[in-house]
Order: sequence, then C-alpha cells, then structure tokens
Amino acid sequence: MSFFISLEGIEGSGKTTQIKRLADRLESLGHAVLITREPGGCPIADQIRQILLHPDNGHLDPKAELLLYAAARAQHVAEVIRPALDQGKIVLCDRYCDATLAYQGYARGLDLPMVKQLNELAAGNCRPHLTLLLDMPHDRGLLRARSRNALGAGPEEGRFEQESLAFHNKVRQGYLDLARQEPQRIKVVDANGTLDEVCHRIWLTTSNALNLPGGM
Amino acid sequence: MSFFISLEGIEGSGKTTQIKRLADRLESLGHAVLITREPGGCPIADQIRQILLHPDNGHLDPKAELLLYAAARAQHVAEVIRPALDQGKIVLCDRYCDATLAYQGYARGLDLPMVKQLNELAAGNCRPHLTLLLDMPHDRGLLRARSRNALGAGPEEGRFEQESLAFHNKVRQGYLDLARQEPQRIKVVDANGTLDEVCHRIWLTTSNALNLPGGM
Repeated sequence: MSFFISLEGIEGSGKTTQIKRLADRLESLGHAVLITREPGGCPIADQIRQILLHPDNGHLDPKAELLLYAAARAQHVAEVIRPALDQGKIVLCDRYCDATLAYQGYARGLDLPMVKQLNELAAGNCRPHLTLLLDMPHDRGLLRARSRNALGAGPEEGRFEQESLAFHNKVRQGYLDLARQEPQRIKVVDANGTLDEVCHRIWLTTSNALNLPGGM
Repeated sequence: MSFFISLEGIEGSGKTTQIKRLADRLESLGHAVLITREPGGCPIADQIRQILLHPDNGHLDPKAELLLYAAARAQHVAEVIRPALDQGKIVLCDRYCDATLAYQGYARGLDLPMVKQLNELAAGNCRPHLTLLLDMPHDRGLLRARSRNALGAGPEEGRFEQESLAFHNKVRQGYLDLARQEPQRIKVVDANGTLDEVCHRIWLTTSNALNLPGGM
C-alpha cells in the first residue's frame, strides 16, 4: 500500500524516535516501509545537508538557504520518495515541505508565497497523504534537543539550536497555523508525556488515516 | 566606478584567459576590479559548486541542479558581487544568469520562464550592465576544453564536457538567442582567432560601454 507520511515538529519534539517506532509497528503488520529524512535522504541531498547544517555557514544568505532546501528536496523526491511510492511502500519522512514553510517562512520571515512556490517546484505532485505534527512547548523541546547534543548524540542540528527561543516559538506557531489551514492532512499530536504515550497517539492517528485497526 | 560585467560562452571559448587580461587592462587605467566566477566565488558557493561539477553526481536531478545554481548565485550576490559594486568596483564575473538560461533552459530543456524566475529570485536587482558573449563554433570550443583538461589543466568542468556535441550546440544557440533578445546588454564577441585578437575585440566593446578610450 503506497502511502506518504511526513513527521514535523520543533527541535526536540521526538520525531526521530517516534518515526522508528511507527515504522516497526507498520512493518510488523506486513507493510513495506521506507524511513527517510530531510534535508538529506540520498547522497547528493546529504552533501547539501552538510552545507545547510554546518555551524561555520552561519552567514548563509536566507534566500540561498531556501534554495538549498528546495534543491535537496527535488533530488530526494526524484531519487528516493517517488520510486518508493511507485514500489508500493509506506514512506515515513522526517521533515518535508511544511518544515521549510515553518522555518524559512514563518520564522526567518521569507515571503510565504515564494516559499510555497519553491516547495511546489521541488516536490511536484509528491505531497504527503498525512502529516503528523508533534507539538510541544518550544522551550521544552529546545531544552531536550540541547541536552541531547550536549551528550554528543548529534551536533548536526547545531545551526538551528543556536537560534533564539523566540525563533523556535515562531517555528511552532507557524506549524500550528499550517495545521489550521490544512486540518485534513496535518494532524496535531500532543508530544508531551512518555515515549509510549506519544507513540500511542501517533498510532491512533496513523491507523485511522490508513484504515488499519487502532488501539495498542 | 561601479560597473558589472559578465562573461559568457560555451566551454573552451576562452573566458577565463580573457577575463584576466580585461582585468589587467582596467586596473592599469586605475580602476578597482574584482574578478569572480559562477558557480562559486565565495566559500559557501564553492561548496555548492563542488556538488554541481562532481563527475560522480551525474544523476543530479535537473530541477535540483537548477536550484543549486540559484542557491550559489544568491549567496554570491549577497556576499561578493553586491558589496563590491557598493564599494565602487568593476566586477567581472565568469558566467552569471545567462549561463543558467543557456545550459539549464535551452540545453537541458527546463521551462525558460521558471529558470528566469529563479534567476530573478537569486540575483534580485543585481543585473550586469554589460555581458560579453564569447562566441565560437561549439565543436571547436569543446575540442579546446577537452584537450586542456587532458593536459591536466582542470578537471572541474568535467560533468559538462561529458555532454554531447548536440548539447553544446544548444547552449551556443541559446546564448545567441538571448543576445538577440537583449542586444543592448549582451554583446556578441567573435572568439575565433588569436588571444590578442579576441582580447582586442573585448576591449573595444568594453571601453565603449564604459566610455573609456578604445583602441590598443
């Protein structure tokens, strides 16, 4: 069954952990699942990701940043997402077009119609059937992300974690605004609570969208 | 005197040699000159250039390629070209927006209005006052570029030199079409002949555009 799900949320909202759990659950039911992420997901997009997330590139021009995200997305869609969907897989993507709107549009202040247009250019007709927005207070998420990175779990998100609390609040509010605009596609999931609790909420929403049996 | 000149032409048309000679001549007359090139011209754009020109990235999606050129341009304009013009320099740029139109639009077949729109997004109001189009038969240029690279002078253009003769002819015809559309800005310079002959033609056109004394 071909189905495209994107996971969105601020830093520290738990996307990476939850996406693995969701994949396990779907695979245990016999579905072919592909986990991927943006920016990245294939060698060329990973090369672009390195430019985007490198702490030395803090002077990256906002328009250049936006265009790099779009370039990575175009490659990722052409090389990974579209072929997987064509093979009947369920694709789980850690961040996608909504992230660009939330970060570059709402938070950085770039013109939203321009960001939307670039998303469409890059993604073409490859749109998620379901987007899970893991929502939590931005200060909690950021604290979690920073303590994770202090433990050496992954400095790669460094550039965004250096941004202010106000920036991350704009990202969160941007996501929530997008969810209000497209309630059919974007489902807000409360990301507060234990891993199991959040996992359960995600499964209820996903199984409902996929017409699978819900519950634990 | 702030002035922006771009040099364009197919592979092997002699841009790199001629741009240095033109800079020397202008500097000998007391002008502050900045030589730069696309894709590249600053560290972030050079990182993007490496992705674009690496022979292993031959499967680069055409839309991703276009977006990478635009990203490199946005950074280059913001970090290098605009500041140099603001400082009153003459900027000489080896390839600029017209190259994207000729290569990605005319030759790769991407939608020309889309390419133009991305050029405008990336370059903003930073448009060349004069564009020198070094024109020669595409088979001669390609032969020159390939023999230059066989001598080890620079493998970095490799990915484009692997393209067919038909591709390079489309690039050339695209450039000539652009020159017909904007004859005031784009001046076609015959790139056949000795280095000195071509250098002389370039100087006549440039000195005329800059209202400088012409001749040798």
